[in-house]
Amino acid sequence: MSLPDFSHQRAQFTLPEGLVYLDGNSLGPLPKAAPDRVARAMHEEWGKMAIGGWNRAGWIDMPDRVGDRIAGLIGAEPGSVTMGDTLSIKVYQTVAAALDLRPGRDVVLSDTGNFPTDLYMVEGLLRTRGAGSLRLVEPEEVMDALDDRVAVLMLTEVDYRTGRLHDMVALTERAHAVGALTVWDLAHSAGALPVDLAGAGADFAAGCTYKYLNGGPGAPAFVYVAPRHAERVQPALSGWLGHEAPFAFDLDYRPARGVSRMRVGTPPILGLVALDAALDVWEGVEMADVRRASIALSERFVAGVEARCPELTLASPRAPEARGSQVSFRFAEGYAAMQALIARGVVGDFRAPDIMRFGFTPLYLGPDDIDRAVEVLAEVLADRLWDRPEHRQRAAVT
Amino acid sequence: MSLPDFSHQRAQFTLPEGLVYLDGNSLGPLPKAAPDRVARAMHEEWGKMAIGGWNRAGWIDMPDRVGDRIAGLIGAEPGSVTMGDTLSIKVYQTVAAALDLRPGRDVVLSDTGNFPTDLYMVEGLLRTRGAGSLRLVEPEEVMDALDDRVAVLMLTEVDYRTGRLHDMVALTERAHAVGALTVWDLAHSAGALPVDLAGAGADFAAGCTYKYLNGGPGAPAFVYVAPRHAERVQPALSGWLGHEAPFAFDLDYRPARGVSRMRVGTPPILGLVALDAALDVWEGVEMADVRRASIALSERFVAGVEARCPELTLASPRAPEARGSQVSFRFAEGYAAMQALIARGVVGDFRAPDIMRFGFTPLYLGPDDIDRAVEVLAEVLADRLWDRPEHRQRAAVT
Repeated sequence: MSLPDFSHQRAQFTLPEGLVYLDGNSLGPLPKAAPDRVARAMHEEWGKMAIGGWNRAGWIDMPDRVGDRIAGLIGAEPGSVTMGDTLSIKVYQTVAAALDLRPGRDVVLSDTGNFPTDLYMVEGLLRTRGAGSLRLVEPEEVMDALDDRVAVLMLTEVDYRTGRLHDMVALTERAHAVGALTVWDLAHSAGALPVDLAGAGADFAAGCTYKYLNGGPGAPAFVYVAPRHAERVQPALSGWLGHEAPFAFDLDYRPARGVSRMRVGTPPILGLVALDAALDVWEGVEMADVRRASIALSERFVAGVEARCPELTLASPRAPEARGSQVSFRFAEGYAAMQALIARGVVGDFRAPDIMRFGFTPLYLGPDDIDRAVEVLAEVLADRLWDRPEHRQRAAVT
Repeated sequence: MSLPDFSHQRAQFTLPEGLVYLDGNSLGPLPKAAPDRVARAMHEEWGKMAIGGWNRAGWIDMPDRVGDRIAGLIGAEPGSVTMGDTLSIKVYQTVAAALDLRPGRDVVLSDTGNFPTDLYMVEGLLRTRGAGSLRLVEPEEVMDALDDRVAVLMLTEVDYRTGRLHDMVALTERAHAVGALTVWDLAHSAGALPVDLAGAGADFAAGCTYKYLNGGPGAPAFVYVAPRHAERVQPALSGWLGHEAPFAFDLDYRPARGVSRMRVGTPPILGLVALDAALDVWEGVEMADVRRASIALSERFVAGVEARCPELTLASPRAPEARGSQVSFRFAEGYAAMQALIARGVVGDFRAPDIMRFGFTPLYLGPDDIDRAVEVLAEVLADRLWDRPEHRQRAAVT
């Protein structure tokens, strides 16, 4: 079975010269169209229309309009996604909304594989509410930990360290069976693999757009509210752009219709314009094809590394269906080894304490890139190239 | 006394062709340097460094670095300001932090002239806390309403509708005398007039950067925490970028040192780059000079309008020292009149129910602009040019 042909998509990216970029799961590369689109918005809209851009350039509708484009990539109903803020803020918002919908319960269940900011935000939320607790279990224990005290099951579908993929359908079903609601963090899912929020019956979801969606550093987050809940949500972060009539300047808050009530403040137009350009790359792309190619690339990588790098231990599930679009290996000297690898033009990243992480993004990566990555990694390990002082210096961002 | 010469600053802006732009208090015009700076960040940093930009291009430090530049414009101590999110979010954060520092009290005092989103965010915060109340009084009653039940005095220094300027020094002093803390919204102050947060003994402040600071549509907000409080604040929005060691990926939250703990999620780099370029315009500018010029322009405008437009009633304080950098007039047909004015190249804005609002931004406005604005306004009113169907159609953003 031949792999899908993504050469048309690959041509739409600026890839760092000479690099094999296996870190699109952290920050996607620059889509070629994005700088001109942002420049045009700055010169032709901000420059020529100034305040008039909110109406005439349609800035005011961008969060919902771009949200609808994301909806199409994550199996969400039209009109159920909007944009803005950061994923951390969107986690706070959605967990707060879900807790409100489950009065009489106060446990938020999550797992130790969740990305820390999700846990931190819930800590802060529960402290602010003065009630409730965050129950953390191991990822494989989540299903059994769901009981009738749980108000909200909050999980990141794909583990940022290991790539382990939760079963969204089964966990959502079980959560509903015990009377809980679900909040899914799709940071490592959106643009990485097929997601079917509507089909799974998910209640809330949120995600960032700077990873597999290539929106740029700090690009705006997205938030999903199932249409059956949207009109019942009373936003905790009740900002004026989520008001029914922002420009009535009423003293009291009345939520807007549907998911638009999850908007908070003035939307970040430059970030939305860059993201909107980045989303053009997905036109005509089937997520099932992306998944098939991602699995082929990651299997090729795992086979190559296991054959040539005995120092490394696979930290990801072996079965590709049980992973997202990344593969991780444990190595005690992982930090230095990753720096040595990067210095030689193969870019992955490191996650404490000992995880070397590699992302597979078929829109701009092919089998040759994988072979080159394996080759360089094998050389770094065989020749202990990591064992140099310059590779041990920790940078601010790892 | 001659006015300061801002021709060097004026040359640094792209002004909408043929417009007299009296709406810089809503969205500042495009600084000429901004598009190239953003393009360079996209091509040279994102495009060439990809994930490496966080360290090599210094993205990770941008919130605090840009925050320090803002600090210099609002009389804040170095290291006491950081950037990110929207003003709405920053209001939530600061009021939550201030409430935490005043256990046993639960009243937030504000006024009916505050910008609605500040009130909405506090409504949401108090609902989430399940305790406390928002007490709203008229602007002139604030001083007397400060009593020993008030935990937090939250005010916007300059009224978005009338331009009325609160006395930050006196109100902060009185708040402290009754044991309350202050949160100052500087949306219409930063870049508009001298602000001395440290001198006033302010506790917390926040503001947006797309008005007088010209950061662009939806530019990131700033937040200030007085150094004496910074190490005691336990952030309610406890995101990973406010963690002491974000890349340790600990399961528990530990706040970063100082104001950096008010960071939440991944910072919006494109927005920060545009803002950073916009801040260059302020190099060598004395805020006292800006204030002096702003008063001269607004006095000229008020005198002209009152002489020639008897239909309008001044809604702003008559004494220029009692106003920010805007002037408003009431007119029952204000919406249509403003549309007629805009159609003739004089841009102000409308605030419900009947306010015609005009902002004075001396960096790019001179006396000739004011005279032209008065001329056109007089013509619109004398000839009832507003009384046309096309000027009554309400747009999404007013």
